[in-house]
Amino acid sequence: MESLHIDLGSRSYPILIGTDLLSDATLLKKHVTDKVMIVSNETVAPLYLRKVIDALGNTPNEHIVLPDGESYKNLDTINDIFEGLLENGFDRGCTLIALGGGVIGDMTGFAAASYQRGVNFIQIPTTLLAQVDSSVGGKTGVNHKLGKNMIGAFHQPVAVIADMSTLDTLPERELIAGLAEVIKYGFIVDEAFFSWLENAMPALLKRDPAAIAYAVKRSCEIKAEIVAADEHERGQRALLNFGHTFGHAIEAANGYGNWLHGEAIGAGMAVALDMSKRSKLISTDTVSRGLALIQAVGLPIEPPASMSKELFLKFMQRDKKVSEGQLRLILLNAIGSAFVSSDFKEQDLHDTLENCTQN
Amino acid sequence: MESLHIDLGSRSYPILIGTDLLSDATLLKKHVTDKVMIVSNETVAPLYLRKVIDALGNTPNEHIVLPDGESYKNLDTINDIFEGLLENGFDRGCTLIALGGGVIGDMTGFAAASYQRGVNFIQIPTTLLAQVDSSVGGKTGVNHKLGKNMIGAFHQPVAVIADMSTLDTLPERELIAGLAEVIKYGFIVDEAFFSWLENAMPALLKRDPAAIAYAVKRSCEIKAEIVAADEHERGQRALLNFGHTFGHAIEAANGYGNWLHGEAIGAGMAVALDMSKRSKLISTDTVSRGLALIQAVGLPIEPPASMSKELFLKFMQRDKKVSEGQLRLILLNAIGSAFVSSDFKEQDLHDTLENCTQN
Repeated sequence: MESLHIDLGSRSYPILIGTDLLSDATLLKKHVTDKVMIVSNETVAPLYLRKVIDALGNTPNEHIVLPDGESYKNLDTINDIFEGLLENGFDRGCTLIALGGGVIGDMTGFAAASYQRGVNFIQIPTTLLAQVDSSVGGKTGVNHKLGKNMIGAFHQPVAVIADMSTLDTLPERELIAGLAEVIKYGFIVDEAFFSWLENAMPALLKRDPAAIAYAVKRSCEIKAEIVAADEHERGQRALLNFGHTFGHAIEAANGYGNWLHGEAIGAGMAVALDMSKRSKLISTDTVSRGLALIQAVGLPIEPPASMSKELFLKFMQRDKKVSEGQLRLILLNAIGSAFVSSDFKEQDLHDTLENCTQN
Repeated sequence: MESLHIDLGSRSYPILIGTDLLSDATLLKKHVTDKVMIVSNETVAPLYLRKVIDALGNTPNEHIVLPDGESYKNLDTINDIFEGLLENGFDRGCTLIALGGGVIGDMTGFAAASYQRGVNFIQIPTTLLAQVDSSVGGKTGVNHKLGKNMIGAFHQPVAVIADMSTLDTLPERELIAGLAEVIKYGFIVDEAFFSWLENAMPALLKRDPAAIAYAVKRSCEIKAEIVAADEHERGQRALLNFGHTFGHAIEAANGYGNWLHGEAIGAGMAVALDMSKRSKLISTDTVSRGLALIQAVGLPIEPPASMSKELFLKFMQRDKKVSEGQLRLILLNAIGSAFVSSDFKEQDLHDTLENCTQN
């Protein structure tokens, strides 16, 4: 087992990465309080809920099994979690466990942030996406019908337990979507990791345990460094949104759930590469190298046919990276070197969006 | 105008206390950002919304007018605020203004805490209760049908503007309910303030501006000192709940809104005095002195006839002051000296509850 320490002062916590961690009867108990509520969904609960309950031993626990899917990531579902907590007499000293992917983690974290003004929670991410992205950084929240992740809180877990064994049951399409965030870390700050990924991609796609564990660890390390420097997303943390401003617009216009988040980010990174080239920041060769890795993962490099420049612009305006009315884009100077740009040329953006859409 | 500095490090803020502050065109503008959403209710908006809009001058602003009452303090109303913010394209750099009493302050604060994971907000409390209690301390939140204030966040305002002039329109019953929290501060930590209140009560009930301003300022000072020492309510801050464990049970059993919060706290403090006497902490004379001031305000000193010992116990168990299964009570050693007790005698509590109820 590898352990990564996320240094956030009094809110520091460990990320534990390894195989068969859920079968370790001592590990989970170290991090829980007197009473535990496990929050999972209909897909993950049949696979792993029993293991977690067994690992809790004689620690009193209850569980809530939610329907699966981004469409349930809303305030109504959060209210269901509150109801379960109140009906079972959970007090401020309780611990919530998020057992599932990013949606379960985001919702459980926000419920933990808001229940009695804040209780402990533990992340047990069971998807690659959740392991490399949402389990680090303390962002929690739900969607509003008018915008994704518009409601939420910064709330750090007390521990993250990333059990590689849970990836054995992950559908292929979700593995690929998770790899979108992994390659993103290479794009934004680490050319060496990008190179490693170019070589290791076949092994990652075959779920080679050692390769996956390294990819998860390096991804969490990079995210942790960026988050530690900017916990509340005032500056550098925005780099993590590489491909996301375009990707969120695709998800919002296309209807959440038709494309997976990682798929939209794949296409979003491709659009960001084009925008970086038009801004005269990177060469055609760099664009080709970037697109090749996105494609090697099996991700789309073009938005869905239904997207238009107008749809992009409409939904990008709503994106929360719009800071005080000013749209900011994450662009590349090179593979491994991203920055936040708010003085790009409008015309370049329009050309980029026209180039990548068919309408 | 008097100014009180609430020292919470990077989350410090001023409380400004005075008359006609809403007519000061420079004051409000000092604390807002580029775009402002005013949240008020149907009772307060017709009286003061225009003044606030005028004071904002050319700062772009919108407003949401909610129905009035504790029964609307729930997640559905919070969602309405989010909808208003999203429909009007409010981004992370916006400022919310809470214009109203405690319910508006709690809801606006929680909406500000959760909108895009946290935006600025300003409190303009227009009731005595909100000025002396909810505007200090950063507690925000809403009720769940299974419990009061069970959902929320700690989120500090960037400024509190307590305009004494807004009390001119406050109904008598709400003035009295607000004074319940004022005398509570005397009970828990300040015998001198308690004595001052005994003498000043006739003037306060006649809304003498100087007397009210002093009462508000001293109340905020006391609360601020306690909150600064214990921002997240781990210890000493529990003293602020004197009378509240009993009072909340009255409110919950009686149906929120039938009795005002301050009325329930009045009776709750009377019950706490009796419990302190049964615990051999204070004399009969001290109880009499305490009850006399509660009565001088015009507050009830007995729970409603519908309350029973069983109802008290049922709802007190749910109270969030139940810490890890252990009920804690705030008791008095003397007027001006409260403490948190978790080792009181069960029998004393049962006798107290039997004595104060008719069923």
